[in-house]
Amino acid sequence: MGSEFGKLLRVSLFGESHGPAVGVLLDGLPAGEMIDPEALQRFLERRRPGRDDLSTARREPDRPRFLSGIKDGRTNGSPLCAVIENTDVRSADYRALADTPRPSHADYTARLRWGEGADLRGGGHLSGRLTAPLCLAGAIAGQILARRGIHIGAHLASVADICDEPFPLWPTGQLFKELAEKPFPVLDEGKGRQMQERIREAAAQADSVGGVVECAATGMPAGLGAPRFGGVESRLAAALFGIPALKGLEFGSGFAGAGLRGSQNNDPFTVDERGAITVKSNRSGGVLGGITSGAPLLFRVAFKPTPSIGLPQQTVSLSRLEPETIVIGGRHDPCIAHRAVPVVEAVTAVVALDLILEG
Amino acid sequence: MGSEFGKLLRVSLFGESHGPAVGVLLDGLPAGEMIDPEALQRFLERRRPGRDDLSTARREPDRPRFLSGIKDGRTNGSPLCAVIENTDVRSADYRALADTPRPSHADYTARLRWGEGADLRGGGHLSGRLTAPLCLAGAIAGQILARRGIHIGAHLASVADICDEPFPLWPTGQLFKELAEKPFPVLDEGKGRQMQERIREAAAQADSVGGVVECAATGMPAGLGAPRFGGVESRLAAALFGIPALKGLEFGSGFAGAGLRGSQNNDPFTVDERGAITVKSNRSGGVLGGITSGAPLLFRVAFKPTPSIGLPQQTVSLSRLEPETIVIGGRHDPCIAHRAVPVVEAVTAVVALDLILEG
Amino acid sequence: MGSEFGKLLRVSLFGESHGPAVGVLLDGLPAGEMIDPEALQRFLERRRPGRDDLSTARREPDRPRFLSGIKDGRTNGSPLCAVIENTDVRSADYRALADTPRPSHADYTARLRWGEGADLRGGGHLSGRLTAPLCLAGAIAGQILARRGIHIGAHLASVADICDEPFPLWPTGQLFKELAEKPFPVLDEGKGRQMQERIREAAAQADSVGGVVECAATGMPAGLGAPRFGGVESRLAAALFGIPALKGLEFGSGFAGAGLRGSQNNDPFTVDERGAITVKSNRSGGVLGGITSGAPLLFRVAFKPTPSIGLPQQTVSLSRLEPETIVIGGRHDPCIAHRAVPVVEAVTAVVALDLILEG
Amino acid sequence: MGSEFGKLLRVSLFGESHGPAVGVLLDGLPAGEMIDPEALQRFLERRRPGRDDLSTARREPDRPRFLSGIKDGRTNGSPLCAVIENTDVRSADYRALADTPRPSHADYTARLRWGEGADLRGGGHLSGRLTAPLCLAGAIAGQILARRGIHIGAHLASVADICDEPFPLWPTGQLFKELAEKPFPVLDEGKGRQMQERIREAAAQADSVGGVVECAATGMPAGLGAPRFGGVESRLAAALFGIPALKGLEFGSGFAGAGLRGSQNNDPFTVDERGAITVKSNRSGGVLGGITSGAPLLFRVAFKPTPSIGLPQQTVSLSRLEPETIVIGGRHDPCIAHRAVPVVEAVTAVVALDLILEG
Repeated sequence: MGSEFGKLLRVSLFGESHGPAVGVLLDGLPAGEMIDPEALQRFLERRRPGRDDLSTARREPDRPRFLSGIKDGRTNGSPLCAVIENTDVRSADYRALADTPRPSHADYTARLRWGEGADLRGGGHLSGRLTAPLCLAGAIAGQILARRGIHIGAHLASVADICDEPFPLWPTGQLFKELAEKPFPVLDEGKGRQMQERIREAAAQADSVGGVVECAATGMPAGLGAPRFGGVESRLAAALFGIPALKGLEFGSGFAGAGLRGSQNNDPFTVDERGAITVKSNRSGGVLGGITSGAPLLFRVAFKPTPSIGLPQQTVSLSRLEPETIVIGGRHDPCIAHRAVPVVEAVTAVVALDLILEG
Repeated sequence: MGSEFGKLLRVSLFGESHGPAVGVLLDGLPAGEMIDPEALQRFLERRRPGRDDLSTARREPDRPRFLSGIKDGRTNGSPLCAVIENTDVRSADYRALADTPRPSHADYTARLRWGEGADLRGGGHLSGRLTAPLCLAGAIAGQILARRGIHIGAHLASVADICDEPFPLWPTGQLFKELAEKPFPVLDEGKGRQMQERIREAAAQADSVGGVVECAATGMPAGLGAPRFGGVESRLAAALFGIPALKGLEFGSGFAGAGLRGSQNNDPFTVDERGAITVKSNRSGGVLGGITSGAPLLFRVAFKPTPSIGLPQQTVSLSRLEPETIVIGGRHDPCIAHRAVPVVEAVTAVVALDLILEG
Repeated sequence: MGSEFGKLLRVSLFGESHGPAVGVLLDGLPAGEMIDPEALQRFLERRRPGRDDLSTARREPDRPRFLSGIKDGRTNGSPLCAVIENTDVRSADYRALADTPRPSHADYTARLRWGEGADLRGGGHLSGRLTAPLCLAGAIAGQILARRGIHIGAHLASVADICDEPFPLWPTGQLFKELAEKPFPVLDEGKGRQMQERIREAAAQADSVGGVVECAATGMPAGLGAPRFGGVESRLAAALFGIPALKGLEFGSGFAGAGLRGSQNNDPFTVDERGAITVKSNRSGGVLGGITSGAPLLFRVAFKPTPSIGLPQQTVSLSRLEPETIVIGGRHDPCIAHRAVPVVEAVTAVVALDLILEG
Repeated sequence: MGSEFGKLLRVSLFGESHGPAVGVLLDGLPAGEMIDPEALQRFLERRRPGRDDLSTARREPDRPRFLSGIKDGRTNGSPLCAVIENTDVRSADYRALADTPRPSHADYTARLRWGEGADLRGGGHLSGRLTAPLCLAGAIAGQILARRGIHIGAHLASVADICDEPFPLWPTGQLFKELAEKPFPVLDEGKGRQMQERIREAAAQADSVGGVVECAATGMPAGLGAPRFGGVESRLAAALFGIPALKGLEFGSGFAGAGLRGSQNNDPFTVDERGAITVKSNRSGGVLGGITSGAPLLFRVAFKPTPSIGLPQQTVSLSRLEPETIVIGGRHDPCIAHRAVPVVEAVTAVVALDLILEG
């Protein structure tokens, strides 16, 4: 359990990175929705490793096969199952790690949870590889949302100590589109080059860096959600913390807002030029009391530096209960935050569509 | 919907601040557990307003009546319903607000969600008053956890710009006990006095301040949880974001960790003096891949400054769709972060017991 | 767990027959719905014991107190909690049964499930007393449904060997209203007198009888439900089998239909005088493939004879693991099927409203 | 929604009879369980059409491919996805039916629910074809249960007017094994021949017959389940009514029991030769108050006669809203009750394992 989320729209992931395939079952999609396979493919490409020198060399084509739920290019109202075959499976690299868990990696806790049956070999169901079918689900949800005027976009807010500029108060679908087409998803490209520099420096030193992603959803109708534990923040949070390496989440002004006065942090209401109620700022991140306010949904998520690094690290031998030093071989991502950008969008799209369906 | 959470242990809140009572239904408690009513009462007192000059003057006694689920001082395995009568209901103060929603307050979104039927009068089901039965649920869960060697504690990590020291790597039940007995829950009492000063300053200026709470759970067995969306972080997040005014959550090093290198942020494994596997740091916050690692569960949550302030604010008239200035009368908390400390513990206790029951 | 059901409209029962109160939490009711307290009370009276010589003498007034969710006579969109105090609690009669479980009674399995903590004294949460708050939930749902043109009614299809006539193909709300006002809910009053005779005969012999209830819901929109396990039959079944003593359920022609040919059992489609599609028979019970067809929802449920009888019965001593003979003292219902009629309607109303809300 | 069931063990079906494949996602299986693929295949063969002259001629091999969740012949604790390709897809036969729904068939309600997008062509997700992956799920659960001493078996209790003998009070795993190996699953083979005669007679007349299946589960620990809506009967009922054409369910003496006296229907407790508590009869079907009693779980389910028959039937044209007569071409099963026997076992196995996992 744990590989699924959603209420009226349910996403269930399956597969292991070293098994035959990974995939997703999407239940609750509205029927009759056109799905553009080329746009899906472009979305998947944004997450795919091996595109540049900033990520691992694994080169799956990530081409989904639809087993159900789509007919003549449209959803047919039955559960949609899509499968991505694993074509580049090499598990040998990880064998030596079986007895010496990697620090701050799920190796260790998977072993505690499932025993030796849980394969410790870098693979398994906990792998980041499962974000491929998750992106697929999100890309499908995103196409359906776009048709309803709802657009979701994200960018790298920071990598190591380098910060991008924040989203404007009212980001547009056009801005999101441009970001999605960039090879490195930042608003300020100068900052983006510095971020890439930081990633290359870390890689050169067999180390890694973390980063922060800012995500926004525009066009969300006001009044969606529920109080408290069923609120928009709770539902997004439950889904977002399912993304590997995600360790923090803040809506609107978040932690910085906790240091402000109410008079500084409150979002004044006003009336726009068309006579509609709007806000002058969005420190609430588009949610009040768990319910969308009509302002863009806005949040930031923190990704820890990739725990798999090439530097020697202290661990223990599980069999001998003695300290050990490990050096993790193979190639690893020196940063996953930039590849996580479409994953964050994908999760947000699924939750947003679920909220819309609930009305 | 939205007023309940939990999987095998379910908490459902009910009641309105200006109705006859508030209460909680707790389903899934283990049978035969002794409940100490005096310890419950002490826990509730920590949240209660009107204890000092830092919070509103409303003075309910908050004495729960148990309608079911307890017999001869022990849980009997059937759903536990506890009710706290509302004795100090004055809704008149809020009447003028019906047409002019308070900035950054759930007034506005509740109205969008439920229409005029949703009473706008400061009250309703979205009120912070509902944290009283939530604390009751948490206090019950906490007593059951303590008997299993699991202890939960929290303190104010910051108010405005003043920061308390962080929890030590291995906080003890004794430390939590001492914190719970303090009138103002901080580790460094000098910092605590400064925080209170900040709250009084804000109050004197008819303004408010926010704060950050750090919470830890010790003694949690390793190996609890599930991958991804069913992970410990997801489940805690979904519940915690149900607390009013909570806008951010980070586990372990969180947002700061996103700025570190992997070699700095990873927690090295080692073997302790008794030969057991342990860690030298806890930047993972006790969770890896959604599963408890055996290190203390550790997270921080950000509370925004109370949105109800006495200063004039810009809003709109919902009926006339014109800008308005409001001044919110009545007395309001200049800070809710310190009163939120037991609420954060309560939610954590419920989620922790739910995880334990799931095994 | 187990005391709740529903998806968008959730009913959670609480309380024990020998505790302070029983009650219900109803979450997900639409806001702004008027609730007629006198009609609620009349509905509760239909279930209440002690009304005539056919049921136990316990005489609670069963007057609900609303703790939340209702304001000025209307639902306000927050969870509705209603409590019925237990005023006539006498547990002494049951004490002797603690070691000798009553045959075919939940005494035994409750003990297996919860151990000695589960009080064995005729009371507890498993008691039929909990059908009082269940009826309350159903009566509230029923008032909301009636306003949408949906009417639910039931009658005793049989008691012992005496059978009432079946519902007509298109029963009316008026027919249901007349049934609800009858002291003994049958279509053919001659048969009703014979049924009552059977009940009195059984009572005179310290024995009990069972019965079958037929229930229908008219005005349900066509197209509600979902395939398979989420179908209307599955959802009704899950809820109905939660009624104490209910051991069978069949939709439309049910078990009898299994003996027919397809050409006999199929319901031919036709066009009615207004040009709308309709059916010439309702052997499908208003559901095809889990989805409502527009014909009345129609099903029958079987209630076993009350297991608590005054005749000597064979049991065992749980402490000595030896055979024992027990004679159960106190007064017991010689039949619960007639009192179950409003309970069946109540459960159906809750499920129907849940389906409607889901759309 | 609706294609999934289960609580800790979740089964989700996907696929359409005329799409590329059907399949199942099984989440929550215990890790490390050996799966015997040949026994799986034998189980699937019991449901497969085209084995004899009593069912349709469609001849898929029904060979599952495992995409995830199994490694080296054992479950690995991650979600198991298995796919069965559709190799014999011919949808042309059904095209004419698009405008004239078949009486008592889900054609009509699927159209109401999903509009024209729901393909009306005999296929779709509602097809009986989906019982193949359901059997796969059940066969996997059954292998895991057998290792824990729990055995599930079923037989045809009746077809048309011919009745098999009932299960003995304590059916054995050996009896179930023999039944599973029979080409026609009855206890009394003479009756079985008469049943087959009835099916052939109906087929010869382009008509169909229904039937009743009796199912038992032995070795279920006592004390499983929950009160009321979470009880064993509720959970089995919700799952069983998801089987196509199933219209009735009764536990133990069921509807017949409703005609008995309490003194006749109660199951006396006694002590067996080894000193354990047992019962002298099983009119309760192994469940009291929603909780297993230790007696075999025992129930009967009614299947309606296949609605697709070759005789002319009255329907309407959906486009012209005028009466029509249809004759359904193609070959159809004259009875599905005998092929439903393994499906009933499969659903029961999944629910039983779910209850066991819940403990």
